[in-house]
Amino acid sequence: MSAKPKPITDPPSAKEMAGRLANVRTLMAEHNLDYYVSFDPVNIYYLTNFANNVHERPFILVIPKEGTPKMVCPLLEMVHVMARALCELEYVNYYEVPSPEGENWYDIYPKLLGTNARVGVEAAMPLGISKVTPGEVVMVDIIDEVRLVKTDYEIGRSVHACDITKEGHLKLMEICRPGAAEIAIYGEVVRHMMGKVLTEIPNANLIVSKFIGAVWPPSISHDPHRVPTPYQLMEEGGPHVSIVTAQVDGYGMEVERTFFLGSMPDKCKKPFEVAMEARAKAYELAKPGAVLSDIDTAARKIIFDAGYGDYLLHRTGHGLGITGHEAPYVAIGDDRELVPGMIISIEPGIYKEGEGGFRHSDSVLITESGNINLTDVPDTLDDLIIPL
Amino acid sequence: MSAKPKPITDPPSAKEMAGRLANVRTLMAEHNLDYYVSFDPVNIYYLTNFANNVHERPFILVIPKEGTPKMVCPLLEMVHVMARALCELEYVNYYEVPSPEGENWYDIYPKLLGTNARVGVEAAMPLGISKVTPGEVVMVDIIDEVRLVKTDYEIGRSVHACDITKEGHLKLMEICRPGAAEIAIYGEVVRHMMGKVLTEIPNANLIVSKFIGAVWPPSISHDPHRVPTPYQLMEEGGPHVSIVTAQVDGYGMEVERTFFLGSMPDKCKKPFEVAMEARAKAYELAKPGAVLSDIDTAARKIIFDAGYGDYLLHRTGHGLGITGHEAPYVAIGDDRELVPGMIISIEPGIYKEGEGGFRHSDSVLITESGNINLTDVPDTLDDLIIPL
Repeated sequence: MSAKPKPITDPPSAKEMAGRLANVRTLMAEHNLDYYVSFDPVNIYYLTNFANNVHERPFILVIPKEGTPKMVCPLLEMVHVMARALCELEYVNYYEVPSPEGENWYDIYPKLLGTNARVGVEAAMPLGISKVTPGEVVMVDIIDEVRLVKTDYEIGRSVHACDITKEGHLKLMEICRPGAAEIAIYGEVVRHMMGKVLTEIPNANLIVSKFIGAVWPPSISHDPHRVPTPYQLMEEGGPHVSIVTAQVDGYGMEVERTFFLGSMPDKCKKPFEVAMEARAKAYELAKPGAVLSDIDTAARKIIFDAGYGDYLLHRTGHGLGITGHEAPYVAIGDDRELVPGMIISIEPGIYKEGEGGFRHSDSVLITESGNINLTDVPDTLDDLIIPL
Repeated sequence: MSAKPKPITDPPSAKEMAGRLANVRTLMAEHNLDYYVSFDPVNIYYLTNFANNVHERPFILVIPKEGTPKMVCPLLEMVHVMARALCELEYVNYYEVPSPEGENWYDIYPKLLGTNARVGVEAAMPLGISKVTPGEVVMVDIIDEVRLVKTDYEIGRSVHACDITKEGHLKLMEICRPGAAEIAIYGEVVRHMMGKVLTEIPNANLIVSKFIGAVWPPSISHDPHRVPTPYQLMEEGGPHVSIVTAQVDGYGMEVERTFFLGSMPDKCKKPFEVAMEARAKAYELAKPGAVLSDIDTAARKIIFDAGYGDYLLHRTGHGLGITGHEAPYVAIGDDRELVPGMIISIEPGIYKEGEGGFRHSDSVLITESGNINLTDVPDTLDDLIIPL
C-alpha cells in the first residue's frame, strides 16, 4: 500500500494552472471545438483560481483553442478577479445589469465568438446565456471531465482538506454528548476547523472555505437528508450519524461516522455490521480498472442479501475535489473505470425507521496499487460506542 | 410618511403560499402556458418554502396550469422536502444520479409534460434540463416577476431581517477599531446576528440563513468587490466601508455605511458629501410611479456634475426580498416603475484610488406615499466619525 501523500497549502503554480488549461484544450481538440465557454463558478475557479458566488451579474470564461482566455465580468468585479486569478486572462467588462442599450453582457459576449465557430458549453449553462451564444453550440462537460483525475498538487490540497476535516470530526466526537444541542456542536466544530484553516492558510479565500459539523441524532438518522434543526438534542444510545465536511480554500472533503452514546441498542447490531460489510467490499474493489457501477452493485448485493434492500436510499459514493460532490459516481449507471488520482467517497448506507441510519463515509484516494483512506479516523464499533 | 410595518417571524400561511401560486398562474395564463417549470432554488423556495443547495441531483418543480404542482426530486431528499414544504405537492422521485437506465431524472421528468404542451422555463434553467424539456419551450421569468412586489407577509419578514441586520451593524460599529482584524469583526458580527435569529426563530432553516459582517478598510475601500482577506487590519482614519447582510430564514436584507475611525482626512470630505447628495436625490425620487432608470440617471448626474463621473462603478441600487440581490434594478436600462411593496437598496457610490470608497446602502420599502428606510441606523457624518 502506498504512503499517504503530503499535504499542500500553497496556492497553485503557474505550471499547475497551465496544465489544467492544456488538458481542457486537448479535449477541445478531440471535440473539434473553436471555443469552450464556462459559466459554472466551480469550473471557472478550477481554471483561474478566482471564485465567485453566482448572482445576476454573470461571469463568463471564453477559452479560444489558442491564445489567452477572456473573462467577461462586471466592471465592479474586475479588481476582485485580478486579485485572485493565477493565470493569464484578458478582461472584457460590461458596466452593470442592466446596462444602457448595446452595452449589456449579452451585447458584448457574443462578439467574442464570431458567427461560424463551434462552441462547447456546459450542461449547467443557463438557457439565457446559451440562447445568445452564436455559432454551433455543443453541450459537452469538458472541464468536469478534466477534473475527474487529480494532479499531484490537487491531491496534496485534498490531503490537507482531509486533515482539517479529521480535526473537525475528532472535536465533534469529543463534545457530542446526550442533551447537547445541534447548534452548539455545529458552532464549536466549525470554529475549530475555521481556526485551523486561518492559521495554516492565512490568506484563505473565504468564498470557497465552508464548513459543516452536524449530527443526525437517532430520532432522524434514518432520514439522511433531513437537515437537523438548531435545537435538535443529542440522545443516549444511537445510532447518531455525524457529517463533517470542509471546503478548505477551494478543496472539499468529508468524513462521516455512525456512533452511539453510552451503549448500542441490540437492534442496531445487525444493520451496523451489514453496512460495515458493504463498506469493506467497496474498499476491496476500489482500485484502478474497477468499474464504478460494479462496486455499487457489489456493495448493494451485501445489503440486499442481508434483507435490507428496502432500506437503501443512495449510491455507494461520489467524487470529491474542488467541490465536495462531483463526478465520478460510485453508482449503477456510471460505467467509467477508476483511475489513479481519483478521489471518491465510500459510504454505503442503510436507513430504517425505528432502527436508524448506518453509514460511514470517507474521502478515499485511488492509487496505482489500490486506495488510501485520507480521512482515517477511528471506525471500529469499539471506537464508536462512546463511554458516558 | 407611513409607519414602518411590524416585523413577522412566523412561517408563511397556506393562504400566503396559495396566493403566490395563484399569481404565477395568472402570468402563466397571460403567456398561454400549459406548464411552468422551475429549477432555480430561490424560486422553488418562494413557492414551496423548501430550500435546497443545488448539486448534481436536480430538484425540478413542474406547475401545471391546473391541479397540484409536482416536485421531481431524488429519493433521498423526499423527507427533507416534506419536512419543509408548506404547500400541496405531488412527489415524483428518481433514485440517484446516475440511476439505472430508464430511471434517471431525465427519463422521468419529460413524461410529466406530454409532447404538445407550451412550457415556460426560467432563463437560469440549465441547458441540460431545457434540452430534455418536451413541447414548445418558452423562456420567461414569471416567478421572478411575481416576486417583484412583496406581500404584506413578505414585508413583515423583510422588516424582521432588517432588524437583525441593524443589530449586526451596531455590533460592527461597536467593535471596529484600528488594528482589529477582518476575521475577528466578521466572527463577532455573524455570531451576534445568528444568535438573535436562533432566539427569535428557533426552527430557522439554516440553508437560507446566511450572514456577512465585513469592513473594507481604507486600503481597499476604493475596490468595492475586492473581498477582504482574513487578517486585513482596520486603520485609523478612513474611509472604511461596512457591509452587513443577513438572510434570515429566507429573507435577505443589507445595510452599509462609510465611516472613519478617529477623524476624517480632508480629502474625503467632498466625495463623502457628493455620495450623500446623490443618495438624498434617490430617496427624494423613490416613490410609486417613478421610473427606475430615471432615479439612477438623477443620482449619477449629481456625481458627474461634481467631477466624479470616472469613479462610478455600479448602479444606484437593486431589489431585495428572499434574496439579497434581485430585480428590479435602480439602473439605466431598467425602465420599470416603482410600485408600493417593492424593496430596493439605495446605494450610489464613488470609488477613487487614493481617496477611498464612499457608499451608504439601506433596504428601502416603497409605500403608497413614498418610501421607508427599513435599516435606519445613524447616517450623518457626525455619527460616522467614531471617537477613539
